[in-house]
Amino acid sequence: MDMTEETWRYLRLDRLYADYCACLDEDRLEDWPELFLDDGVYKMVSRENYSQGFQIPLLLLDSKNMLRDRVYSLRNANIYQAHRYRHAISGVRITAHSDAGLEVSSSYIVVQTLSEGFTEIYQAGSYYDQLVETPDGLRFKQRLVVYDTARIKTLLATPI
Amino acid sequence: MDMTEETWRYLRLDRLYADYCACLDEDRLEDWPELFLDDGVYKMVSRENYSQGFQIPLLLLDSKNMLRDRVYSLRNANIYQAHRYRHAISGVRITAHSDAGLEVSSSYIVVQTLSEGFTEIYQAGSYYDQLVETPDGLRFKQRLVVYDTARIKTLLATPI
Amino acid sequence: MDMTEETWRYLRLDRLYADYCACLDEDRLEDWPELFLDDGVYKMVSRENYSQGFQIPLLLLDSKNMLRDRVYSLRNANIYQAHRYRHAISGVRITAHSDAGLEVSSSYIVVQTLSEGFTEIYQAGSYYDQLVETPDGLRFKQRLVVYDTARIKTLLATPI
Repeated sequence: MDMTEETWRYLRLDRLYADYCACLDEDRLEDWPELFLDDGVYKMVSRENYSQGFQIPLLLLDSKNMLRDRVYSLRNANIYQAHRYRHAISGVRITAHSDAGLEVSSSYIVVQTLSEGFTEIYQAGSYYDQLVETPDGLRFKQRLVVYDTARIKTLLATPI
Repeated sequence: MDMTEETWRYLRLDRLYADYCACLDEDRLEDWPELFLDDGVYKMVSRENYSQGFQIPLLLLDSKNMLRDRVYSLRNANIYQAHRYRHAISGVRITAHSDAGLEVSSSYIVVQTLSEGFTEIYQAGSYYDQLVETPDGLRFKQRLVVYDTARIKTLLATPI
Repeated sequence: MDMTEETWRYLRLDRLYADYCACLDEDRLEDWPELFLDDGVYKMVSRENYSQGFQIPLLLLDSKNMLRDRVYSLRNANIYQAHRYRHAISGVRITAHSDAGLEVSSSYIVVQTLSEGFTEIYQAGSYYDQLVETPDGLRFKQRLVVYDTARIKTLLATPI
C-alpha cells in the first residue's frame, strides 16, 4: 500500500463528505446536486428491504437534473415544517478501488431541530457510494442511502 | 494544492478539535482555556439570531482570563446538576486560509448523561472558528458556537 | 514530530476504528474478534466505577477465543430483540506511544434501531485502547469501554 496515495485518498474523501454535509446542514441545498455526476444517482432504501435483496427505493433521483429539480421543489413547491439537520459521519471505509473509481461505505447519524427548538435523532443508517474522479474532484456516481430508521416523525423533505 | 501541506493542515485541525473535546468530555476543564489566545474569544449565538444577522450572544468570554474565570466559577461557585458531555464533531471544512491563520467550520452533536444515568441529545450546531498558528500549535482566536437547539432541558453550565 | 509518520499513524488508527465499527454496525460480528490479539482483552466498566478507581467490569472477555465465544453465543444461544447499532467515533487522541505500541482514547456515541423502527441513543462513553502493531496491522491488546450511560433500556447483547 502506498502510504502517501492512501492518505491523500482518504483526505479527499473526507473533504467530499464534509462538503456534502455542509450543503444539507448549512442550508446550501443548491450546491448539493453539483457533487453528483450528470447521470449520478441518489437512492434511499430501507435496511429491511436492502437486507432481503429488494431495492425498492423510498426515493430515487437518477440524474443531476432530477436532484436539481428536487431542490427547486423544496425551495418553491413543497410544504413542510422548517427544520435543520446535523450529520455525524463515521466509519468511512474504502471497500474497492480501481481506475474507474472508488466504492466507499460509511455510517451516518442525522439529528434534526424543528422550529420548536428541540433536537432529536432523525435517522441513522449507511451510505454506500460509488465515486469517480473528475477534473472538479471526486463526485458521486451513486449514493445509496440505506436507512435503519423505519419510522420517522415527520415527512422526509430535505435529502439525507 | 500542495497535498502534503493540505494533509498536515487537516491533521493538526483534527488534533486541536480532539484536544478541545477531551477537555470538556473527560472533565479536564482547566485545560480548555489554554487552547485559546490570550485575547481569544468564545461566543455562543442562537441559529435564529445568527441567520438574521443579530449576533447577540447567549454567552461571551473575550479573553483567556475570562475563560479561566468561567472554569473557576464552574468548579467553585456555580450550582448545577452533575453531567457529562460527549461531543461528536463532523464535517470539518477549511473555508479560508492565509498567513494570518485559518477559518474553519464544523458541525457538532453533544449528548449529555445526567446523574440518573440516561443519555440524551443536549445540543447540536456549528462551530465557526478563527485559528492562528502559535509556537504551541494551532490556537483559537475565536470560536463562535451557533446552536440549532433553542430549547435545552437544563441550564448551560459547561461550555460546548 | 515527524509529520509523515504522525499522519500515517492517525490514518491507520482511523482505519482500525472504521473496521471495528463496521463489524458491529454492519452485522459482521464474526470479524470483530479478529481485530484483537490472541490474548486481547475487551472490558466494559461504568464511568462511576472507573472514576473512583474500581474497575469491576460489567463485561470482561480476556482472550480472542472468549470474544469468539461471545459472538457464537449471540448468534446461536442468546435471546434478545433484533437491533442495529450505529457508532459515531470522535476525538481520537494518541496519549502515549512507544515501540511496544500505542495508547489511544476516543469518544463514542452509539444509537440503536429496534425492530419497531425507531432510533434512539443507546450509549455514550470513552474507549481507552492499548494497540500493538502486528503483521496484519494494528490490533487491540486491550479495549477498555467506559460507558457514561448507566441506564440502558434493553439488555446489553452486541458489544459496544
